[in-house]
Amino acid sequence: MLYEISEKTMKLESEGKKIIKLNLGDPDQSTPREIVEAAFEAMKEGKTKYSFPAGEPKLRAELANIHGVSADNVVVAPGSKWSIFSLAYLLIKNGENVIIVSPHWTAYELIAKSVGAEVRFLTTEVDTNWEVDAEKLAELIDQKTRLLILSNPNNPTSKVISNKTLENIVQIANDRKITVMSDEVYSDISFVKPKSILDIDDSHILINSFSKTYAMTGWRIGYAIVNKELAGRLSRLHQLTLTNVPVFIQQAALRALELRQEMADKMREIYRRRADLTYRILSKTKLKFTKPDAPFYFFPKSDNLDSERFAFNLLDKGISVTPGTGFGPYREYFRIALTIPDKDIEPALARICEELK
Amino acid sequence: MLYEISEKTMKLESEGKKIIKLNLGDPDQSTPREIVEAAFEAMKEGKTKYSFPAGEPKLRAELANIHGVSADNVVVAPGSKWSIFSLAYLLIKNGENVIIVSPHWTAYELIAKSVGAEVRFLTTEVDTNWEVDAEKLAELIDQKTRLLILSNPNNPTSKVISNKTLENIVQIANDRKITVMSDEVYSDISFVKPKSILDIDDSHILINSFSKTYAMTGWRIGYAIVNKELAGRLSRLHQLTLTNVPVFIQQAALRALELRQEMADKMREIYRRRADLTYRILSKTKLKFTKPDAPFYFFPKSDNLDSERFAFNLLDKGISVTPGTGFGPYREYFRIALTIPDKDIEPALARICEELK
Repeated sequence: MLYEISEKTMKLESEGKKIIKLNLGDPDQSTPREIVEAAFEAMKEGKTKYSFPAGEPKLRAELANIHGVSADNVVVAPGSKWSIFSLAYLLIKNGENVIIVSPHWTAYELIAKSVGAEVRFLTTEVDTNWEVDAEKLAELIDQKTRLLILSNPNNPTSKVISNKTLENIVQIANDRKITVMSDEVYSDISFVKPKSILDIDDSHILINSFSKTYAMTGWRIGYAIVNKELAGRLSRLHQLTLTNVPVFIQQAALRALELRQEMADKMREIYRRRADLTYRILSKTKLKFTKPDAPFYFFPKSDNLDSERFAFNLLDKGISVTPGTGFGPYREYFRIALTIPDKDIEPALARICEELK
Repeated sequence: MLYEISEKTMKLESEGKKIIKLNLGDPDQSTPREIVEAAFEAMKEGKTKYSFPAGEPKLRAELANIHGVSADNVVVAPGSKWSIFSLAYLLIKNGENVIIVSPHWTAYELIAKSVGAEVRFLTTEVDTNWEVDAEKLAELIDQKTRLLILSNPNNPTSKVISNKTLENIVQIANDRKITVMSDEVYSDISFVKPKSILDIDDSHILINSFSKTYAMTGWRIGYAIVNKELAGRLSRLHQLTLTNVPVFIQQAALRALELRQEMADKMREIYRRRADLTYRILSKTKLKFTKPDAPFYFFPKSDNLDSERFAFNLLDKGISVTPGTGFGPYREYFRIALTIPDKDIEPALARICEELK
């Protein structure tokens, strides 16, 4: 449902229709000019040739430094989604299973199924503040469980997993010898700072991206931090599939890292303002939701809502949101992404509330 | 062996060693300034967002126009290698087999094995002018054969398959219901114009790239032309893996297409000059080889050569070539890529001949 809505939205736009897009985790900000200039400089310097499949040594070293690992652990990829797909492709055999903390980003489920895994959902509920139940996790694991995938902060709930819960999760994963893949793409701009999986146990997998912090979604650059053996396998897979992320894009990412603190602070403030406004407005409704710990999303529940019908009806009226069924068994929910200019939020929410009546 | 030599070469260079690189199909020319400028303009215009997974409509339409197909048949990809991998991933089940016309680009074999296929080589020989034996092909096909992969012009032999032979191949493929994947990335700059697979039967698969004609290897952009059903499946796989090729790169590719004739003519002449020079020099040796129909490669045979030892010894002396074992069962052969400036060719060949003594 995430991609169906997104494709229909793009199609309507290409036909000239004006859509207020609350459906995409694609920041409305432009990529900072310094980053664009860095890419252009690199192109002019001839950084347009084949290069190392795991990424440029300098970029890997900088990322390693940020995360307190060795450069050998870092594999630069064309987006965090590619990292997740390529790791699933390498780690999962047909008939094995993957546990996904849900609600979840659609891609985790579709990727797991694509590589032949059975998918099990570790569901969480708005009524219990989206808390992950570690006992329920233990029950879902069996001999064929290979991976636990979670996003922290979570997309679509914007909930940060508490340190204690994350430690419990890692403990169970270690006891049962499964790998945790922690997608932390919203971490740098989170209102509540989540603990990284690597700070608990660096034998697990960190997924990260330049997309959200630097407004670089369409540049397609992210990275995985994994053990050295797996980094070698990923690098060989890159050699067979992509060769490398264009070096000029990696040079742009290097420039982005120099702006890291400044960009994260700026982005966090933009989204905090929008989240506060949205929280105030939605608090006046009957919707059930939690206060977001992080950008970009609200994931409210409206009792007895058929969110797919709701979303397609709204889209016809020029507003795009994603039905809850795009994120697991959450038919009564829908996701709002605050990736639109501040001025558009209040009118868009008013129309959503109108449609809910 | 292709990638082992390439990685060792990059490593030696990063340590400051000067290597004459005859190992890579990476043109020594720079990407034309107009193409770089087009990418920069697109970035500045904000073409840095998520977009259509199968590619920008305008680029798909232009490519469709060139190849005489519909835009729905064109899927833009981050390099021709990705097209080959993603199609193999979608088309081949574990235990099925793939036939590869050999000598062949390493990636075909590694990709086929990666997705669980058994690989069968349809070998060709320098002594019979690299002619593909259609009878041998018929014998290799069984119930579990899914794909025939060939490159036309061939990498590493630079041989173009004659129209008659290609028609025979397609006839056998059609009779036996297997798909031909024809990699035509050297076609536009070929000295002898090969017939495209699509001109014989457009139910088969064309693979192409911007890398060679426009010196855009490191930009990672290519495309596949496939039937509409498969295009839809590829697009959904892109959505799960890469999202899309960066739109600013697609805008650069659009600009490249405007320069198509001019660039192809220019590139063809550069490589014809180099091929003529190389042909003259190697004709004075005992090496067996054929006159190239296309850029960039020579694939000479030296009786009783251990090409791996030979290539690593040469690399220690500052010259990089690829051993024949990188392209199938061709231990006595090695590949020379004429992707170095003209002035370096004569001295490099002299040192290769010296090492062969």
